[in-house]
Amino acid sequence: MDLKIAIQGIKGSFHHQVAQQYFGESILLEECDSFNEVVRALKANRSEKAVMAIENSIAGSILPNYALIDKNDLHIIGEYYLDIHMNLMALKGQKMEDIKEVHSHPIALLQCEVFFSQHPHIKLVESIDTAETAHRIQKHNLKGIAAVAAPIAAQMYDLEILAAGIHTIKSNKTRFVVVKTKNKELPKEEINKASLKFELDDTPGSLATVLNVMNNCKLNLTKIQSLPIIETPFQYAFFVDVIFEKYKHYEKAKKLLEIMTTHFKVLGEYKQGKP
Amino acid sequence: MDLKIAIQGIKGSFHHQVAQQYFGESILLEECDSFNEVVRALKANRSEKAVMAIENSIAGSILPNYALIDKNDLHIIGEYYLDIHMNLMALKGQKMEDIKEVHSHPIALLQCEVFFSQHPHIKLVESIDTAETAHRIQKHNLKGIAAVAAPIAAQMYDLEILAAGIHTIKSNKTRFVVVKTKNKELPKEEINKASLKFELDDTPGSLATVLNVMNNCKLNLTKIQSLPIIETPFQYAFFVDVIFEKYKHYEKAKKLLEIMTTHFKVLGEYKQGKP
Repeated sequence: MDLKIAIQGIKGSFHHQVAQQYFGESILLEECDSFNEVVRALKANRSEKAVMAIENSIAGSILPNYALIDKNDLHIIGEYYLDIHMNLMALKGQKMEDIKEVHSHPIALLQCEVFFSQHPHIKLVESIDTAETAHRIQKHNLKGIAAVAAPIAAQMYDLEILAAGIHTIKSNKTRFVVVKTKNKELPKEEINKASLKFELDDTPGSLATVLNVMNNCKLNLTKIQSLPIIETPFQYAFFVDVIFEKYKHYEKAKKLLEIMTTHFKVLGEYKQGKP
Repeated sequence: MDLKIAIQGIKGSFHHQVAQQYFGESILLEECDSFNEVVRALKANRSEKAVMAIENSIAGSILPNYALIDKNDLHIIGEYYLDIHMNLMALKGQKMEDIKEVHSHPIALLQCEVFFSQHPHIKLVESIDTAETAHRIQKHNLKGIAAVAAPIAAQMYDLEILAAGIHTIKSNKTRFVVVKTKNKELPKEEINKASLKFELDDTPGSLATVLNVMNNCKLNLTKIQSLPIIETPFQYAFFVDVIFEKYKHYEKAKKLLEIMTTHFKVLGEYKQGKP
């Protein structure tokens, strides 16, 4: 039976691209309107796993998605780094000079600023979603209009790519995580990365002490992000990702952190993705 | 002469509200289309200072603005924490039952999800900006349409607030920074906070060592955020905010960090805002 995967967005989105590249082609996609809806799909068992964008090399952490994972006790069971490639696409047979308007998500348009400054005759129109715009062009046979979207959108909606890789900053990586409601996907030997959350009092040096312990246990930090706890001033929460070679080292650190920090929580234990 | 302050957005925006509360009422506002435009206004001396949102208690750091400050060598000379209050506003005399549509920025609409779920007869329409929508309602005398925007927008565009504080998560703080092209606003005695950026090799424990040094110099961390340096794998950059009681302690730490880290940079030295 095909694996059911929930994503935010529709077929042809970057989330769809990640789901395909991570799980292979034979998946059943549950298209959700929002990340909240993705969580509901998992909890209602309509989908077994979900793919969620979690941080971007340009815009940073997507904290609302961290909060969703945390609040709903989801587990991160894998990660995937996608190089975001923006492509200009239109109905087959359309040429660059036929295009009068380009529709896409505001962020996608912004990321292609330099390209469009070289084509000043094209009017930029903001839309809700990259893939939905591609879909709309196909559905209504819209001539003179192009979309900026993922390569997979051209494939899904039978469009022709007029220009590939039109984003300004060429290294535009987004990190996605694979989540589910239950943990323990992998045998311990295959786990070499973990995402942790903990809180610390505002005692001087408390974070340094925690990092020293991690270092002594041979854990290597790949990400750290502090966030103030709104209800409790002078109390901080941290999202931390660590990589390690031996699970037993990580287990030892985990025991120490449980004692040294408050509200210690493992958001996920998984195999490191290729950055 | 009135102080010229650049903001992203128009009169009645949250940036405008911060500019007024930080500098007082007698400012000349330079309304900019984008944060890039804000930077241009400063560099061309059209404005002396600018106000920029830098992090949000819900969405986290606004890394593109960090990047703008860093890349353009701007200096943070102050900070301000604003409690974001979303208000529903319409033409004077309009009642709640008259409202058929609410227009606002998608994020603002999302932040008021629970309120609108209690008013299912109202259609939600996404627009580019909160304040611009309020302005449009006034300009075209639009009946039956309300905007979600800052209280100051109602004041600017002579609208009536139909419902105040309609955002779901009540503690929705945004941190703004005040920036200019030259540093040294304040005498050393008044400075008790600094924003720093530095890079570290991926040697185990390098961050813990740096934090230990800060701690020994009596610097207290209020924010830490790692970001991978895209061009250099296994090299990390950190944005760090520290508070301190004595400037000389901070000066000592600065000298040590210059030696211990690479690309050490002070993004700003200023007086801590009230969180």
